[in-house]
Amino acid sequence: MRKFIKFSLVASVLAGMGILAMGEANAAVDTETAFVFNTFSFLVHGVLVMLMAAGFAMLESGLVRAKNTATICMKNIALYSIAGLMYYLIGYALMYTDVDGGWIGAFDFLYNPATSELALLNAADAGKEAANAALLKDSSYSSMSDWFFQMVFVATAASIVSGTLAERIKVWPFLIFVVVLTGIIYPIQGSWVWGAGWLSEMGFSDFAGSTLVHSTGGWAALAGAIVLGARKGKFGPNGEVNPMPGANLPLATLGTFILWFGWFGFNGGSQLALGSAADAAAIAIVYVNTNLAAAAGVIVAMILTQIMFKKMDLTLCLNGAIGGLVAITAGPDLQNHAYAILIGGIGGALVVIAVPLVDKIKVDDVVGAISAHLVAGIWGTLAVGIFGSGSIVTQFIGIVTIGAFVFVSSLIVWMILKATIGIRVGEEEEMTGLDKSELGMEAYPEFGRGS
Amino acid sequence: MRKFIKFSLVASVLAGMGILAMGEANAAVDTETAFVFNTFSFLVHGVLVMLMAAGFAMLESGLVRAKNTATICMKNIALYSIAGLMYYLIGYALMYTDVDGGWIGAFDFLYNPATSELALLNAADAGKEAANAALLKDSSYSSMSDWFFQMVFVATAASIVSGTLAERIKVWPFLIFVVVLTGIIYPIQGSWVWGAGWLSEMGFSDFAGSTLVHSTGGWAALAGAIVLGARKGKFGPNGEVNPMPGANLPLATLGTFILWFGWFGFNGGSQLALGSAADAAAIAIVYVNTNLAAAAGVIVAMILTQIMFKKMDLTLCLNGAIGGLVAITAGPDLQNHAYAILIGGIGGALVVIAVPLVDKIKVDDVVGAISAHLVAGIWGTLAVGIFGSGSIVTQFIGIVTIGAFVFVSSLIVWMILKATIGIRVGEEEEMTGLDKSELGMEAYPEFGRGS
Amino acid sequence: MRKFIKFSLVASVLAGMGILAMGEANAAVDTETAFVFNTFSFLVHGVLVMLMAAGFAMLESGLVRAKNTATICMKNIALYSIAGLMYYLIGYALMYTDVDGGWIGAFDFLYNPATSELALLNAADAGKEAANAALLKDSSYSSMSDWFFQMVFVATAASIVSGTLAERIKVWPFLIFVVVLTGIIYPIQGSWVWGAGWLSEMGFSDFAGSTLVHSTGGWAALAGAIVLGARKGKFGPNGEVNPMPGANLPLATLGTFILWFGWFGFNGGSQLALGSAADAAAIAIVYVNTNLAAAAGVIVAMILTQIMFKKMDLTLCLNGAIGGLVAITAGPDLQNHAYAILIGGIGGALVVIAVPLVDKIKVDDVVGAISAHLVAGIWGTLAVGIFGSGSIVTQFIGIVTIGAFVFVSSLIVWMILKATIGIRVGEEEEMTGLDKSELGMEAYPEFGRGS
Repeated sequence: MRKFIKFSLVASVLAGMGILAMGEANAAVDTETAFVFNTFSFLVHGVLVMLMAAGFAMLESGLVRAKNTATICMKNIALYSIAGLMYYLIGYALMYTDVDGGWIGAFDFLYNPATSELALLNAADAGKEAANAALLKDSSYSSMSDWFFQMVFVATAASIVSGTLAERIKVWPFLIFVVVLTGIIYPIQGSWVWGAGWLSEMGFSDFAGSTLVHSTGGWAALAGAIVLGARKGKFGPNGEVNPMPGANLPLATLGTFILWFGWFGFNGGSQLALGSAADAAAIAIVYVNTNLAAAAGVIVAMILTQIMFKKMDLTLCLNGAIGGLVAITAGPDLQNHAYAILIGGIGGALVVIAVPLVDKIKVDDVVGAISAHLVAGIWGTLAVGIFGSGSIVTQFIGIVTIGAFVFVSSLIVWMILKATIGIRVGEEEEMTGLDKSELGMEAYPEFGRGS
Repeated sequence: MRKFIKFSLVASVLAGMGILAMGEANAAVDTETAFVFNTFSFLVHGVLVMLMAAGFAMLESGLVRAKNTATICMKNIALYSIAGLMYYLIGYALMYTDVDGGWIGAFDFLYNPATSELALLNAADAGKEAANAALLKDSSYSSMSDWFFQMVFVATAASIVSGTLAERIKVWPFLIFVVVLTGIIYPIQGSWVWGAGWLSEMGFSDFAGSTLVHSTGGWAALAGAIVLGARKGKFGPNGEVNPMPGANLPLATLGTFILWFGWFGFNGGSQLALGSAADAAAIAIVYVNTNLAAAAGVIVAMILTQIMFKKMDLTLCLNGAIGGLVAITAGPDLQNHAYAILIGGIGGALVVIAVPLVDKIKVDDVVGAISAHLVAGIWGTLAVGIFGSGSIVTQFIGIVTIGAFVFVSSLIVWMILKATIGIRVGEEEEMTGLDKSELGMEAYPEFGRGS
Repeated sequence: MRKFIKFSLVASVLAGMGILAMGEANAAVDTETAFVFNTFSFLVHGVLVMLMAAGFAMLESGLVRAKNTATICMKNIALYSIAGLMYYLIGYALMYTDVDGGWIGAFDFLYNPATSELALLNAADAGKEAANAALLKDSSYSSMSDWFFQMVFVATAASIVSGTLAERIKVWPFLIFVVVLTGIIYPIQGSWVWGAGWLSEMGFSDFAGSTLVHSTGGWAALAGAIVLGARKGKFGPNGEVNPMPGANLPLATLGTFILWFGWFGFNGGSQLALGSAADAAAIAIVYVNTNLAAAAGVIVAMILTQIMFKKMDLTLCLNGAIGGLVAITAGPDLQNHAYAILIGGIGGALVVIAVPLVDKIKVDDVVGAISAHLVAGIWGTLAVGIFGSGSIVTQFIGIVTIGAFVFVSSLIVWMILKATIGIRVGEEEEMTGLDKSELGMEAYPEFGRGS
């Protein structure tokens, strides 16, 4: 419903006051101006989200060891590219076309501009006025601006998987998984909610994707981590968890800041309209909640790690910011900002608590993505039932059904990949580092190595 | 006055032509469209400024030694988080609520959306038209978009302090200072000018904060550097100044470019409105002056360092860009762009001259922030009295009173912190590096170390 | 014609429906709102392009060896600064003023805001309405917003040169070349097309600058590489090509992502208007083509390098993204997005094929810029004649004439510089690294060095 409900706000305001108000001082936004605003909001907010691909690349580059850094860079630029192509080829149609009430969209190929837009762009001068009117009657935003905005979301989901599985997965099998995730798995579950499918009809609410994007990425990562197994030496025979610290923490910090920056596009653009004062005010509220939740996630992680480990932990605090951001993503439209602090703070706390628990069950998540995206995503989705307008039962149903679908289907794909082409590099390759074995290069050829 | 004066431009244009023009070809922007433009300008420009937090983090990460890099990252994400929370809890109200003519705003807690906005967002369909009209009568922008934009400014002021005090300050005491700076000191001095307080009534002019943001950060940093003392070994017994070069100059370069990028939001958004052709044209002028001043700062720093040291100095040239940017910030609305080159060029020159002078008085400023933000900020504020519309006497009064208030109150806070919990790590910790002692980790665990 | 043609779309729509539609539900964007949209599009898209300066700086920092990294940072911030100043001093006027039909613009100095804008900004309240009307009659966007947008393009052209010539060129001679390139060479060839000069009259089409920006940068780089010669040891006596791998691949990856991010501004803003539904829809189409072309460039480079070298090559895949982006830049307004995939994919393939060919002819291009910008730029410009609205013959004429002009004039400048002040560091300096000899510093003083 992400696509349709929000616009009704604009529509009703315009319907209520449009014509009459036109001649008055307190005039409403006219329909063409609203079209431009809505389209520009998709584009500007979408381009902010696009930079999150760089954020994930830097976060993950900073948190892996030097010998696996070029590979993680390769994976990140490749997955962003694949996501964009798959979503054009089949994903968008599967998610948004003819879904109403159902479980899946259409098997259409190649999503191209709307007919009414092309008619306007190609109209002779004499026909422009009529073509313009026809377009504005047809839609309140450009079709491809919406595609662009939705595309960067599927790329985000794929980015989440990349970090968890770092340092031992072969690149090509990983990328094949990304093809399936971005072309099929993500769009199908997305259609249930944002495509106006059955979960949306039931009232499930996920403003910008705590469940649809972040938990989905997290479930896919969890399935992969289980099938792939832990890095050699990560878990000792007597239950020890051996730290394998990241090689470049300023890059991880940069990545987190870039993610935070991009999140204003992620949540703000998910208002899906800018063409009225109501929409503009709503987006501003979303920005503020987004920032407060992230800030609270950091502060809580700082305090908790100080108490638990006697020292603040930078990596967990960075993940605390992400946990806060993920947690607020399902409901960043809360009208009392204090709740955003609470929700984000709990998101940050959950990350700090979940990271050692994930280790305890011997799931090797190199960058903490399962904690930051899946666990905080579940919390944020439930929080809409507690603090927002959603029903907690419906939220729970959505979390479970999407989780089950994404986890099981991902598990199947991972197992097929494992059984066929194999997904894991050899022991020696893992020891030497994936950069040498997978790419034949080094990320930092001149910087001396520690043990 | 930053909040109110600028809007009067829009208001007067709208008042003058709004209704009549509506039915004519040369129609003005209607009030709702202006509301959306103004709000979107705050958000888009605010999010650019938000990324400056990453810029400072990278600049400082690049300019400290490897052993203190994780700590500077920690401080930067923590201070941005604290600034956001404190400004929500008390800062914004102290700065902007009920200040007119006075010295301080209101002690209100938790700044939430305006009543008229919530009324619109929550109105039933039948009531939307009236609620929309009421909102547009009440305001020409969303309340929280303004909050967001002002919040990223206080975060910037806090970022400035971080770099100066690097490599020997304990993290928690630093963060407690940030709480006071962002929650109390910054908002109080800000209220004098942008909150329509006494300095604004006197005619003091600071478009985007050469004094209010940059010098304020610089004064707080100077006070801290005096109380904290220099790094062990920085100043020799016979007046030697021992260079302690930064570990990662491309990161410092990246940070400078990100700051430059964010500065278009910083200065451009400070027009505080986009809802008319006049505002749009004014913002464009601001962008151009901002870019030319920074460019001139770089070029002058290149030439000066070439002359003075026989080689260009990258670090000083990066700071030259910042000096140029800080200098133009008080008056980026100059209508002859050649003046921007002059002002920015002098800003760059002042940085190159001030950095060794600060060393000479044995103030240890790790990243040159006092020179780039305080010295260039004073110059830029005076320049408004020379080239712009301000009176140089009033500008001087503003510089001195704000400087005295921020410096003295910061000094008191630093001395209290020193006398109570202590602000400096032990000698051994300083030698080993703060990353080990404060965080128990390394920023670059695998990269070999020089001496 | 980039400046004028596009606006006619807005103008004709407005002329067709403006007044009449005003009182109707389906009202058009009014002229002042369109002015704001057009101006804001220039500014927002321009600031995205501005960040490409950081993208190039990081890409090049990552691809040079550690000992030359500070120098490449210095060059990048210096060239961006010089480009901005030169374009203000003389470049913009040479490119855009009084060119119609001709070969060069006006020798005017200092480009300042339009008279009608200053009249509005300085009007007394009583005169604002008339001044506003006069401005809107005069222009549909702010003069300086256009200047800002065009300025970041010339900076991009200069950035391209920097990487090719890295690791052996002296900084000052390089910067003198940048003065000539950005102040004279680039504006003259730019005037032929975007300044409505002879090539534009002939029908040559280059939407955002595959030829005008990217090939121009590439030709200047090629001329420089020939005059400068290869790095010591790059080409062995028996035709060996010795790899000299970059020191920091995550920075190169970051740079590529930032370039990709900025390219939405580069291509999207080149619609040159946002003030109508048609413009907004057109920009959305441009965004999508831009993203698909880059993605295809990456995927094709991945597959090709896997086939050719048995392993994917990260550096070539990063350059594949750039090749795809450059290729789509001449015609990102294609209405069938599948063509963008084809054009971008071929762009990526050309980069993979051209990089070893450039080596074979013993041109030492440190970062692959000639392949990614010149070769892919030629392809993209021709593609407009194949898939778009251009004539392939005219496209070819434009490629050849601009190429000849830029290459020959650059060659002359490089040869003059070589004959006078010299352009190359000494052998010993090259061995030690330019950071020591040119700047007296190290980029990474604490990170151990390999052989």
